[in-house]
Amino acid sequence: MKRSSQAVAGTALDRLTLGHGKRARLWRLLYGHGPRNGTLVVLPLDQGLEHGPADFFPHPPAVDPDYQFRLAIEGNYSAIALGIGLAEKYMRDYAGRVPLILKLNGKTNIPDDTQATSPAIASVEDAVRLGADAVGYTIYVGSPRQDDELRRYREVRQDCERLGMPLVMWSYPRGAGIDAKGGKNTLYAQDYAARVALELGADIVKLHEPQENNADVPMPYRTLKENAAARTQRVVRSAGRTLVLFSGGEKNDDDAAVLRKVRFYMDSGATGVMFGRNMWLRPFDQAVALSRAVHKIMTKYLR
Amino acid sequence: MKRSSQAVAGTALDRLTLGHGKRARLWRLLYGHGPRNGTLVVLPLDQGLEHGPADFFPHPPAVDPDYQFRLAIEGNYSAIALGIGLAEKYMRDYAGRVPLILKLNGKTNIPDDTQATSPAIASVEDAVRLGADAVGYTIYVGSPRQDDELRRYREVRQDCERLGMPLVMWSYPRGAGIDAKGGKNTLYAQDYAARVALELGADIVKLHEPQENNADVPMPYRTLKENAAARTQRVVRSAGRTLVLFSGGEKNDDDAAVLRKVRFYMDSGATGVMFGRNMWLRPFDQAVALSRAVHKIMTKYLR
Amino acid sequence: MKRSSQAVAGTALDRLTLGHGKRARLWRLLYGHGPRNGTLVVLPLDQGLEHGPADFFPHPPAVDPDYQFRLAIEGNYSAIALGIGLAEKYMRDYAGRVPLILKLNGKTNIPDDTQATSPAIASVEDAVRLGADAVGYTIYVGSPRQDDELRRYREVRQDCERLGMPLVMWSYPRGAGIDAKGGKNTLYAQDYAARVALELGADIVKLHEPQENNADVPMPYRTLKENAAARTQRVVRSAGRTLVLFSGGEKNDDDAAVLRKVRFYMDSGATGVMFGRNMWLRPFDQAVALSRAVHKIMTKYLR
Amino acid sequence: MKRSSQAVAGTALDRLTLGHGKRARLWRLLYGHGPRNGTLVVLPLDQGLEHGPADFFPHPPAVDPDYQFRLAIEGNYSAIALGIGLAEKYMRDYAGRVPLILKLNGKTNIPDDTQATSPAIASVEDAVRLGADAVGYTIYVGSPRQDDELRRYREVRQDCERLGMPLVMWSYPRGAGIDAKGGKNTLYAQDYAARVALELGADIVKLHEPQENNADVPMPYRTLKENAAARTQRVVRSAGRTLVLFSGGEKNDDDAAVLRKVRFYMDSGATGVMFGRNMWLRPFDQAVALSRAVHKIMTKYLR
Amino acid sequence: MKRSSQAVAGTALDRLTLGHGKRARLWRLLYGHGPRNGTLVVLPLDQGLEHGPADFFPHPPAVDPDYQFRLAIEGNYSAIALGIGLAEKYMRDYAGRVPLILKLNGKTNIPDDTQATSPAIASVEDAVRLGADAVGYTIYVGSPRQDDELRRYREVRQDCERLGMPLVMWSYPRGAGIDAKGGKNTLYAQDYAARVALELGADIVKLHEPQENNADVPMPYRTLKENAAARTQRVVRSAGRTLVLFSGGEKNDDDAAVLRKVRFYMDSGATGVMFGRNMWLRPFDQAVALSRAVHKIMTKYLR
Repeated sequence: MKRSSQAVAGTALDRLTLGHGKRARLWRLLYGHGPRNGTLVVLPLDQGLEHGPADFFPHPPAVDPDYQFRLAIEGNYSAIALGIGLAEKYMRDYAGRVPLILKLNGKTNIPDDTQATSPAIASVEDAVRLGADAVGYTIYVGSPRQDDELRRYREVRQDCERLGMPLVMWSYPRGAGIDAKGGKNTLYAQDYAARVALELGADIVKLHEPQENNADVPMPYRTLKENAAARTQRVVRSAGRTLVLFSGGEKNDDDAAVLRKVRFYMDSGATGVMFGRNMWLRPFDQAVALSRAVHKIMTKYLR
Repeated sequence: MKRSSQAVAGTALDRLTLGHGKRARLWRLLYGHGPRNGTLVVLPLDQGLEHGPADFFPHPPAVDPDYQFRLAIEGNYSAIALGIGLAEKYMRDYAGRVPLILKLNGKTNIPDDTQATSPAIASVEDAVRLGADAVGYTIYVGSPRQDDELRRYREVRQDCERLGMPLVMWSYPRGAGIDAKGGKNTLYAQDYAARVALELGADIVKLHEPQENNADVPMPYRTLKENAAARTQRVVRSAGRTLVLFSGGEKNDDDAAVLRKVRFYMDSGATGVMFGRNMWLRPFDQAVALSRAVHKIMTKYLR
Repeated sequence: MKRSSQAVAGTALDRLTLGHGKRARLWRLLYGHGPRNGTLVVLPLDQGLEHGPADFFPHPPAVDPDYQFRLAIEGNYSAIALGIGLAEKYMRDYAGRVPLILKLNGKTNIPDDTQATSPAIASVEDAVRLGADAVGYTIYVGSPRQDDELRRYREVRQDCERLGMPLVMWSYPRGAGIDAKGGKNTLYAQDYAARVALELGADIVKLHEPQENNADVPMPYRTLKENAAARTQRVVRSAGRTLVLFSGGEKNDDDAAVLRKVRFYMDSGATGVMFGRNMWLRPFDQAVALSRAVHKIMTKYLR
Repeated sequence: MKRSSQAVAGTALDRLTLGHGKRARLWRLLYGHGPRNGTLVVLPLDQGLEHGPADFFPHPPAVDPDYQFRLAIEGNYSAIALGIGLAEKYMRDYAGRVPLILKLNGKTNIPDDTQATSPAIASVEDAVRLGADAVGYTIYVGSPRQDDELRRYREVRQDCERLGMPLVMWSYPRGAGIDAKGGKNTLYAQDYAARVALELGADIVKLHEPQENNADVPMPYRTLKENAAARTQRVVRSAGRTLVLFSGGEKNDDDAAVLRKVRFYMDSGATGVMFGRNMWLRPFDQAVALSRAVHKIMTKYLR
Repeated sequence: MKRSSQAVAGTALDRLTLGHGKRARLWRLLYGHGPRNGTLVVLPLDQGLEHGPADFFPHPPAVDPDYQFRLAIEGNYSAIALGIGLAEKYMRDYAGRVPLILKLNGKTNIPDDTQATSPAIASVEDAVRLGADAVGYTIYVGSPRQDDELRRYREVRQDCERLGMPLVMWSYPRGAGIDAKGGKNTLYAQDYAARVALELGADIVKLHEPQENNADVPMPYRTLKENAAARTQRVVRSAGRTLVLFSGGEKNDDDAAVLRKVRFYMDSGATGVMFGRNMWLRPFDQAVALSRAVHKIMTKYLR
């Protein structure tokens, strides 16, 4: 089920005060590509920088970025998300056919994450020049270097405002403080990450499914007893009017489980999912088939 | 009792040399909204970023910023104080109906506060663009990183000067030095914080009620024996011509106690109070009723 | 004895190559106010920020900056020296009647001074806007952070050059290195501080009276045997063409001793004195009387 | 075998979207000088800064940069790569005869490399002024200071984009993290370095031949059993559309071994080699003769 | 023996590609003042900042910068080298009569040198404004903070390029790394410092005479057996087309020894010497006489 282009009234877009540029680009992501009904299915390819080429080992053809571009087109994704190097060198034949989310910052995982921070390698103006429909920006929520992180984020947000560019935040709890408070995937951490994205003005936030809290998380989370659905709904609620994408996570060979998880996220109020390794580490035809099955589910969630 | 718009002569505003923009905006806060007699009742909502969503747990509807906006309107607050993300995404239906104090800086509480510093996430120009009537800025008085704090503050102050924007300082003693000297809520700490706000040129300062000094504070505070009223008056005096708001603190279910505290602050010479959790963690109708009771008290304190 | 306005030839001003703006402002300080004979008596009020309100405890009326402004006028001071907050909020009724030295940087004394650095809270342009006749700037000579200190100083000096603004340097030895070399008030420390002010291009330098050297100072100071007069003259000589002000120090109830010290400084070749707590912690009439006695002495030292 | 100037169709250049300036300069490197068939033989001279004059001890005449310039001309190199000081003072007689790759950053090896970072000493605008056909930039992949490294790199990349300047990345794994993960020359390290160059948008990357992995490298590299050819091909593949140059390494007196290595690199898919000490530490005539033998090999690898 | 103004052909200047401004200023230093034959005798006065007034103790009149200015004129020096404060306040009567090398950076020696860095206190534009013929800039070669040092240097070099200002580098090995590798005056350290000046694009470099290497220096220096002349020649050779000045060192009362050293430096290929304390700690007439004896030697070394 797809919304007509007139159907923005009553949607998430409609509740927001957006300039023309941001509105046009968000419309393109939500209603112009992918499921075209206000939901999002995004294909990210930043693992080569974030984790190194090892991530491609299970399926060697994936080392060639053409593979992901072809999948994004064939699988009718809402957008492909990648950095400046890959965009510059591989997008020529695909430009315009699939929206680009240009990831502005990134880092290798060679040093450890206790003082995590992600430097910007590209700018919002690069995104404009490349015809991107959004920028991606990682914030390491609660890092000991949060002051530097947030100050640099501010410039990106202001450039987005000035240039009408939607901002997708990878809101990742990380650093020594988070480790001491139970780790990065607890409800405590993901709930805070969701709210931070809202408070910082992100248009869309990428989160991970919140796990059960453990003994190390702060009160009152420590005593909270909520099932997976309640936890995930809570996180979506904390993000408020910032649209939520959940990570598709690492590769899972059980297709049915993957699809169940998609339904679970959408039932929790999310706007969509972001599928990386769990999609492009499959043989091309299987990846396309699974992408289509995901789209079929998304059509039921008019947003 | 309300002052007419001509009644600025003889007020706090009148003692100051203010450009047109700052004067117009301060007038709006002091005489155009809220009690309209030179006092202030401000509703802040920055806890989602500063403390995380846990602050909303006692009253779940408060997680939706609409709740606080509605309360600010219904409770006839002088202003609502919040950050860029919430202002951008939730203010549309309320713009103009309640003045906005845009908080420019903020941080999570995940790392500890020994080296506390608060990064700016928005600018004075953002405040102008959003139609704000003041900006809020947190200074961690005495932090080991005070040099960085003060340098960045300077830019904000100069932008405020240039753009005619009143500056509300959250003047918070914090960091290893303060911990070693008795902690953040002693008379020593709050008295210094009040004077710092004056010396740095804040128009309005938010402080906490000074507690009795303990054995760790420096001399001559250590030997000072003053009751609560004397301590609070001292702090207001140290702030000089900078108007003082006292924090309403955490939730207190005893309404009468809350109102007694308001009278206590106003009797000490304060210009007003800032009520966050102590107000918006109540059911809506109770919060509105208590807000009105506060206003009733304020009408007796013509400023 | 006062110089006529034509009498600049042969004075300290005459030995220097100064642009029109700097010359006009220095003339106002040296010959247009205060003793008007080339000497200086300056009233500083930065203790509220540097030490906290505790400095006002011995004489509570001094917490209101009006007190110092009134004293500066009644006591016919060459200038009042204070920061941006006090200047903005209290100078209206006194503007033009007493020259302003706007102190650009400052800090609290809550963290310790081993890594001392003083951040700028205002700019030379602020000083111009406020009609100041000089700016004040603190350098912590020999601090482990001297590279940062000096780089930031450079911008201030260049703005002074560009805008014709005299620069008064608070040249304060401070930090772990100085502590290891005998402390901040030795002849070694003050002599170096005097020379640093000259080398950095200050127009006027505020110093403290050099104490006898101790066993920890470097050679050849350690073996130097000089009396108080010789020490003070040495420091003045090291400052070269940079005019020297000595600090009046903490409150001393013995008026005659205060006046003896003034004569001692002037006999050593200094251009003047800077009197803070030693003046404004007295009852108003006593402070005015003592100020006049100081002026009487100054008239004998035509500069 | 040389391509005619029309023969860009079907080459590496043809797969990329390049502005006129970058295309013209890359064409000059690949088809206008050196083997002129899409391969590259580059002569670098940055060892005087990176290692000190000790590198010239085995062949003293090499301390005079004229030696390398003459060799670059006589040996018909694709380009000479050196820093601003040598370019400014020695290029006059050779300008235009051999393309210049201006190395923008560099450092001494006096401090150790655990926190390695390479400061820029020149800018892309310097390269334009000097008529360079590319800039060289070193990234210490995985350094604890990677955030600073990448942020500064971004400015260089953006200047290259703006000014049409090809960017050659010296992609060097370095720092405490790499040391803990097996060291800088393992397949793990070089493979990651190759991908980082691609992700960051380098046009050409300089790498070292990957050595066999050892027990300290992360999984799955630790269990990988690949011969030298497979390892080198893997690295070239990870670099994608970024052209790969392999380092000629330290001096090797066995000419036949040097030439075998060149063939080995070219068979692995590399675009060329970078020969420094292994070439200019030989007597001039021998160096020219060996250079010609290398060129002869390159003619067989049309790119 | 002096070169006529036409005689630049065949000189050091002639080998370089210089813009008009740099060429004119270098000509003034090499052929317009001092020996006027391409050699240099420079009088530096930066010890008051670098070491404190203690350096003037052996000869108290030297504390007055007029002393050095008079000596520079009477002794017919090629240039006087000093910082912004002394230039601003003392140069009026001497401007134009002796060229000025404005030292842009400097520091006190109160903190230790393990992390040595020298902040810029003045700019190349200050030098232009003051009519200087060159700027002086200290680089602490091999300091742990070399990345910061080199980045800041870059701006100075680029300003010199833009404004046609010759750059004299005080190339001083310093910091924990150098201490661990044998210290700052070994051949290893001075040889590296000479090359760094060349690589960084200095026009003139100030070095110290290299001492014999000790057991701590790196290979191959550790095994090098060279006499003083060979060591000094090696250093001059490593500096390439960057002109070398050797430091005259601390005061030596044996005039004949001083003159022998001058001959020794010039025989090694140096362009000149820089004489500070060794000259201005002498009584004025002796200093002038010795300066003339030095000039007499220089006339034999046409450059």
